[in-house]
Amino acid sequence: MNKTSFALKGNIFFTPAPGQLAIYPESYLVCVEQKVAGVFAQLPEQYKDLPVEDHSGKLILPGLVDLHVHASQYAYRGLGMDMELLQWLEANAFPEESKFADPEYAEKAYSIFTQQLLHSATTRACIFATIHRPATLKLMELLEKAGLCCYVGKVNMDRNSPDILRETCEESLAETRQWLLDSAAFTKSKPMLTPRFTPSCTDELMAGLGKLQKEFGVPMQSHLSENLSEIKWVSELCPGTRFYGEAYEQFGLFGGECPTVMAHCVWSGAEERARMKANGVFIAHCPQSNMNVSSGIAPIKSYLLEGQKVGLGSDVAGGAHLSIFRAMIDAIQCSKLRWRLVDQNTPALTMPEVLYLATKGGGAFFGKVGSFEPGYEFDAIVMDDSNLPTTRLCSLPERLERMVYLGDGAPCAKYVQGQRLF
Amino acid sequence: MNKTSFALKGNIFFTPAPGQLAIYPESYLVCVEQKVAGVFAQLPEQYKDLPVEDHSGKLILPGLVDLHVHASQYAYRGLGMDMELLQWLEANAFPEESKFADPEYAEKAYSIFTQQLLHSATTRACIFATIHRPATLKLMELLEKAGLCCYVGKVNMDRNSPDILRETCEESLAETRQWLLDSAAFTKSKPMLTPRFTPSCTDELMAGLGKLQKEFGVPMQSHLSENLSEIKWVSELCPGTRFYGEAYEQFGLFGGECPTVMAHCVWSGAEERARMKANGVFIAHCPQSNMNVSSGIAPIKSYLLEGQKVGLGSDVAGGAHLSIFRAMIDAIQCSKLRWRLVDQNTPALTMPEVLYLATKGGGAFFGKVGSFEPGYEFDAIVMDDSNLPTTRLCSLPERLERMVYLGDGAPCAKYVQGQRLF
Repeated sequence: MNKTSFALKGNIFFTPAPGQLAIYPESYLVCVEQKVAGVFAQLPEQYKDLPVEDHSGKLILPGLVDLHVHASQYAYRGLGMDMELLQWLEANAFPEESKFADPEYAEKAYSIFTQQLLHSATTRACIFATIHRPATLKLMELLEKAGLCCYVGKVNMDRNSPDILRETCEESLAETRQWLLDSAAFTKSKPMLTPRFTPSCTDELMAGLGKLQKEFGVPMQSHLSENLSEIKWVSELCPGTRFYGEAYEQFGLFGGECPTVMAHCVWSGAEERARMKANGVFIAHCPQSNMNVSSGIAPIKSYLLEGQKVGLGSDVAGGAHLSIFRAMIDAIQCSKLRWRLVDQNTPALTMPEVLYLATKGGGAFFGKVGSFEPGYEFDAIVMDDSNLPTTRLCSLPERLERMVYLGDGAPCAKYVQGQRLF
Repeated sequence: MNKTSFALKGNIFFTPAPGQLAIYPESYLVCVEQKVAGVFAQLPEQYKDLPVEDHSGKLILPGLVDLHVHASQYAYRGLGMDMELLQWLEANAFPEESKFADPEYAEKAYSIFTQQLLHSATTRACIFATIHRPATLKLMELLEKAGLCCYVGKVNMDRNSPDILRETCEESLAETRQWLLDSAAFTKSKPMLTPRFTPSCTDELMAGLGKLQKEFGVPMQSHLSENLSEIKWVSELCPGTRFYGEAYEQFGLFGGECPTVMAHCVWSGAEERARMKANGVFIAHCPQSNMNVSSGIAPIKSYLLEGQKVGLGSDVAGGAHLSIFRAMIDAIQCSKLRWRLVDQNTPALTMPEVLYLATKGGGAFFGKVGSFEPGYEFDAIVMDDSNLPTTRLCSLPERLERMVYLGDGAPCAKYVQGQRLF
């Protein structure tokens, strides 16, 4: 056994299924060659010589997964929040993203983002960069050095964007091809196709990306049915489509062989949902962003009940917070408002359900990730809740809930693919 | 001039009216004998000998006001959040509150609460204790020692409560009278009548409290129209009333001569709103709690437009967070969802509006509190936003927004009535 085989001792939590919370008090989580070997009350004979890292008293969880975050928007999170989506894109997102044409600016901004992500509870993420190939490669390099395992996308935009942030279709495809080739330099940072959203990509560009996807076999991410005015716009731009998702699917960019994650899906109708389920499209639920840009509340509980694949996203900077613990709370709170104000037939999300979304739900996009079941990649975080004062003796489920609601979200130790990052 | 006369230098913000944000870059905020004398770009001649505390580069705001918080629930904030209001009261609130019969437990729990409140951005609060007189006096003593200016209420409950947390009507009135007399020992901690809510107080008790209010001239706090099942219950308990507020008003306990603050008002109808406005009843908007216990979203923008008196409340432990900055964000986010899902004729709340609610709006309950206009009591907090990394050069309104959304909410200096607490 190599140095990536060891055991952690502590209070171990994971969610084998939505709403199902497995808890192992003061137990051993065994990692053998970067993968989970199992969770044991006592260390079994065959593992007795493994080094044990003692986190007794603390909470050990699978690393959290952020299915949707814009690294290039990190600098202005928490700004311009009094605007709606399309206005906010014009005023905030586009001017900031144009700065990433400058590699020096990109390195500075992405270094801040990478350090914040590293010290958060997130171990995996699907990340939007910008249209700029060198800056995108720099981000991939920084993430790789930090030890994180992320999908990163060079963004494609050839219409409805300011001059300073618009490619021609030919440029966009050529740069994307080159970037896919360049990305082979990395092992933990992986490329994914990233047409920003339908309004910013011509049919020609989408068709070209569809071909690139077939050629390179890479996954894809974009935005879907986020906001009513955006959906109306897409229906005007794509008169031949019956629903927003079809604007992607007509070019083969909607799941199927290559994994696809779509952010938001706040207003997806029955047809779109049926296609998403059939194609195994992942939904990145970004509740805070959906509040901040006044989009609404996605019917996540219904998605779970109908068997959709769902995870959580911070959507920085539509969301102001990188913390996926915060996204868990936001998801619960929004689902309660949805129950009260929109649909009293669908109950609210619970803590075990949102923990599932934050771990195994989103982790499935990365393969066997987000659980402590045997064979899963060993991504773990250790949370110290001793700094939250109380007079109350809390049970382990209570400590988990308190930590999620009240903690600062920063782990005291973090492991990705069996490697300890800090 | 005594030692409570001085000046602060820094970037000064306040809101003279809802939505109106006054900003004075690197200016002087002058305190003369515990009151604001004014804000000046240069220190005027008559104040040139005042000591200046230099907070250059930092943000100086009026202290925040929490119009509704349960000190006795602090120990279990962030717990049991998967329940609705009435279930959560039975499972969490009542068992915990019963522990405050033990003065030793009360001192321990209230010490934690007081220290957390002291180091938060809150300078004034309206606080629920429990039914226990000695514990309530202990809380008032701890707050007074910390230098905070709070209204505190010994709670009244003589029905629909567990045996361990129920008084007889006679006991409740006698203990309340004695507590009002005992409270004369304090100068900063002041008593306010606190019938928990209509379901837990008989008519006889309410009538007795109405008489006590006339005799002692103290303000009053309670809960109003929080949750649909609660409202239905009240209408069954009080068949002679046309709306929930009338259950208080019939005993003279609904504003008028003695200031009244009612928490929540999520579902107040036209008649109730008219009476609240006529009587000058304050509304404590507690958006996080209204999400957590699935109550809904109060129409706060409409309340502002119709001239109601409104402030913010953390409602710990229905709300998990003591931070009124967090309540400001929650209020904005909820108002955006309300616009999207309930009433597209009423726009969302903005940052300058929620800052008003958090300062002058709630502060008005305490008199001339919550602004830096001349003559206001000198309550101020100093916020250091230098630990929020960004590549962006932010304007002062942007720094305010960022600090509210992203900061940890802890001031680096705090003043109440001209006294520096840290």
